[in-house]
Amino acid sequence: MSRKSRGINAERDLIHKFWKEGWAAMRAAGSGSSQFPSPDVLAGNNIRKLAIECKLTTSPRQYFTKKEVNELQFFSEKFGAEPWFAVKFFHEPWYFFTVEDMKETGVSYAVTVEQARSRGVEFKELLE
Amino acid sequence: MSRKSRGINAERDLIHKFWKEGWAAMRAAGSGSSQFPSPDVLAGNNIRKLAIECKLTTSPRQYFTKKEVNELQFFSEKFGAEPWFAVKFFHEPWYFFTVEDMKETGVSYAVTVEQARSRGVEFKELLE
Repeated sequence: MSRKSRGINAERDLIHKFWKEGWAAMRAAGSGSSQFPSPDVLAGNNIRKLAIECKLTTSPRQYFTKKEVNELQFFSEKFGAEPWFAVKFFHEPWYFFTVEDMKETGVSYAVTVEQARSRGVEFKELLE
Repeated sequence: MSRKSRGINAERDLIHKFWKEGWAAMRAAGSGSSQFPSPDVLAGNNIRKLAIECKLTTSPRQYFTKKEVNELQFFSEKFGAEPWFAVKFFHEPWYFFTVEDMKETGVSYAVTVEQARSRGVEFKELLE
């Protein structure tokens, strides 16, 4: 299975989790195909809307480029959603972060698996 | 250009219109790829969220199957969005309908170009 397919499968798994909890969630059409920013996943219920940028990695450290961060924040502000960054490290659950939870490293924001365990929010907490 | 490409182009044109008006909008990933319902287009601002099923046609009559209608209503209820049906007839602007605006015809809901002109809501009105 390709890297891209694994990423899409991970996003589908996340969407499944939202529906199981009574939320609606959907994947955005291929982000390269549009001149406008869109999150990987958009989830909502009658109270909250979450715009989520998702990364699947086998590395112990994951980066989000400043462009990805800015675009998610821009989309979220216009749409009226909370911007969240999600990372699925190998053999770990999904962890969710706000931009403030990540470490700025010049051209990008980084999060390690250790930081994920200490500062990340797990799925059930995200919905609380 | 294929029928599918024309449909996608029409959806992109609609998304462009939303951004131009200060809303955020996105296309959903290919609907066949998910076991969960999702609208063709999801648009939002800080006040409203619109889940839209889009059809482009050269025929003077357009149908939405009951499955499409039910799925859009189900998604919208869970997500917390207004369900809207949009049709772009040949040489006409986009017209938007609620399910009540359409005629039930047994297995589907139908709308003709004449009904669109009299009962449909145009883009600018939709945002009011």
